Amino acid sequence: MALIVHKYGGTSMGSTERIKNVAKRVAKWHDAGHQMVVVPSAMSGETNRLLGLAKEIMPQPDPRELDMLASTGEQVSVALLAMALHALGKEAVSYAGWQVPIRTDSSFTKARIQSIDDQRVRRDLEAGRVVIITGFQGVDGDGHISTLGRGGSDTSAVAVAAALKAKECLIYTDVDGVYTTDPRVVSEARRLKTVTFEEMLEMASLGSKVLQIRSVEFAGNYRMPTRVLSSLTDPLMSLEEEAQSGTLISFEEDTNMEQATITGIAFNRDEAKITVIGVPDRPGIAYQILGPVADANIEVDMIIQNQSMEGKTDFTFTVPRGEYQKAMEVLDKSVREHIGAARIMGDAKVSKVSVVGVGMRSHVGIASQMFRTLAEENVNIQMISTSEIKISVLIDEKYMELAVRALHKAFGLDAGQGA
Amino acid sequence: MALIVHKYGGTSMGSTERIKNVAKRVAKWHDAGHQMVVVPSAMSGETNRLLGLAKEIMPQPDPRELDMLASTGEQVSVALLAMALHALGKEAVSYAGWQVPIRTDSSFTKARIQSIDDQRVRRDLEAGRVVIITGFQGVDGDGHISTLGRGGSDTSAVAVAAALKAKECLIYTDVDGVYTTDPRVVSEARRLKTVTFEEMLEMASLGSKVLQIRSVEFAGNYRMPTRVLSSLTDPLMSLEEEAQSGTLISFEEDTNMEQATITGIAFNRDEAKITVIGVPDRPGIAYQILGPVADANIEVDMIIQNQSMEGKTDFTFTVPRGEYQKAMEVLDKSVREHIGAARIMGDAKVSKVSVVGVGMRSHVGIASQMFRTLAEENVNIQMISTSEIKISVLIDEKYMELAVRALHKAFGLDAGQGA
Repeated sequence: MALIVHKYGGTSMGSTERIKNVAKRVAKWHDAGHQMVVVPSAMSGETNRLLGLAKEIMPQPDPRELDMLASTGEQVSVALLAMALHALGKEAVSYAGWQVPIRTDSSFTKARIQSIDDQRVRRDLEAGRVVIITGFQGVDGDGHISTLGRGGSDTSAVAVAAALKAKECLIYTDVDGVYTTDPRVVSEARRLKTVTFEEMLEMASLGSKVLQIRSVEFAGNYRMPTRVLSSLTDPLMSLEEEAQSGTLISFEEDTNMEQATITGIAFNRDEAKITVIGVPDRPGIAYQILGPVADANIEVDMIIQNQSMEGKTDFTFTVPRGEYQKAMEVLDKSVREHIGAARIMGDAKVSKVSVVGVGMRSHVGIASQMFRTLAEENVNIQMISTSEIKISVLIDEKYMELAVRALHKAFGLDAGQGA
Repeated sequence: MALIVHKYGGTSMGSTERIKNVAKRVAKWHDAGHQMVVVPSAMSGETNRLLGLAKEIMPQPDPRELDMLASTGEQVSVALLAMALHALGKEAVSYAGWQVPIRTDSSFTKARIQSIDDQRVRRDLEAGRVVIITGFQGVDGDGHISTLGRGGSDTSAVAVAAALKAKECLIYTDVDGVYTTDPRVVSEARRLKTVTFEEMLEMASLGSKVLQIRSVEFAGNYRMPTRVLSSLTDPLMSLEEEAQSGTLISFEEDTNMEQATITGIAFNRDEAKITVIGVPDRPGIAYQILGPVADANIEVDMIIQNQSMEGKTDFTFTVPRGEYQKAMEVLDKSVREHIGAARIMGDAKVSKVSVVGVGMRSHVGIASQMFRTLAEENVNIQMISTSEIKISVLIDEKYMELAVRALHKAFGLDAGQGA
């Protein structure tokens, strides 16, 4: 008897047959006495179809209109899922983000959730209805539809779960959990039964595509227990079995004594590196470089500033590869002359590989083992960045898979290896 | 320099290429100094695709969820059209019905417009923006999305034009105007340059599919000059030429002195006839029969009650063929025993044919000429119903086309014939 939030990805919602399976699974949980809220994505292919139409009209459509367009995909999903629950004799009602409302800022195509009103949803839950809410979208202060960006449905689900103080948020997807690394790259990758919030944050931010990073941030901020599990299992499998499957993002790291030092190897293929050369080394220079980049809504990831030589320094940072051109333009237009930099260099063919694990806090020698492993494979390291629970290196993209495999093995993560 | 509303049907919005043509046409009107509001339908096929998905889930989906689903079709259209106008350098903004808002009652799938707030739209128009509003839909008092039923985009357009006190509402469609009858049935049919509101109301209600009847009612109630014209012409044709094309629904019938007695022959193939036999002839009996039918949201068209014999009478009425089964069930469940009727008979294979014209008010002999023409073709008349400007007969559906052709010729409507 708890309030549970389910989230289903586009593949799980990919056809009316699959939607019926989702309804069966939700109905099973409802039958067990739980109050159910469901957040589905658009049917697989639908968002791409819509964005394709937009591109046929013009190459760079207005973000506000793109959101108006793309948000219809999830609206179709919620209505169909409500019908599928009706067909099973369940009371169910669907809501678009603006109907809840899920309030966001006005950064169209990458809006951030500001607040979620739970009153309407609670009334329905108390009346015994399954409530189905569009993922990916909300409404801004002026009543414009906004979307949270690709993968935003995960964020919607966890945010809704947090707003409703749900007992658990279950993210159903086409993988059966979080792995030590991508099994498509390393066939020996193992599924993790639990992962801490911090590790999941690093894994997600480093390109493990299982969960959108903002959803993990929400889970962390609100300490929302979030489970990643497969939607491809029998929808009528026992509730007990299902509730133990997948990978749980946990907030009780100490209970997991057998935790290996390293949880996994994360990577992100699509990085780009930008270096501003000959920057005067004076206070405020980092802000003068990165401020205009942030204003252009470009996410910056790794940042390195070298020791200055003769009052000049080089400033290097990475951005998602899709934002590379835009970032270069911003720097050329608003930054280079303004700060008196010599020139700007870029490389759009780099990848990031990271070892992640809360265990490394109390273990020395992780970094040196990582660098030795890469040296043995003749992989040159271009940049290094570290946090308490991860070490990341930037390398030429052509060595990425090699590096991931070597590190996965070196840190004892291969299936069958001892921890 | 006027406020003009354009409405584009699904065929006109059927591809991104066609949407670009719509944008060109709208931009041309805007360039001429007009304030432009555009109400597009869903891309052709889209509403059927969505309803098809719903049918795959369950045969009789919940109307509230059907509206949630179907309303996405128009939302896609408005966003794409806004982008297409941006591509031409025009400022444009799209709104869903709930954003305007267009307020309706809660009769999902066949909602009626209650009010339209013009403030948001006016602000945009004054800022020089083209405003694009979803047809077909609105929002009820509880914030649920509602749709106006098939063809509802016409109604949206005229209602928006009325709310904004537009100078003219132009309905762009895949025919180039209103004809004396359906040219697919009678090849000699002629296009009318003007038609009075009353005639158009009769033509629309009798199955002339050019405009949805509720849009004609709105046009009449608000005396909104409404023009039906083709979207298949060159979008860059001269504004003067375009403003004179199609058929204008006029509110100044006397200016049109050369008006023929009969404007056209209308017909509706999909009628069904229901007779309640042996009804006690007492006050209130009509309401007792038709009240439950109206409560079930079934539109009743022709109604006939015969002279009573020995305190009993027969009561006959027609409904759209698609509502026939439902009407029969309502009568069987809620009416027959309650009023003590002997039995209920029905025929779902009847059609209605009507001659329409304001001219008949001042001309005798129209009815007798109509009946003589049908008699000469051996067409049996099952029911007759008349108004000031039309005479309708119900006949076996297999004679419908024959009857229409014979009447079109008999009343001098064939192209080349004198009036």
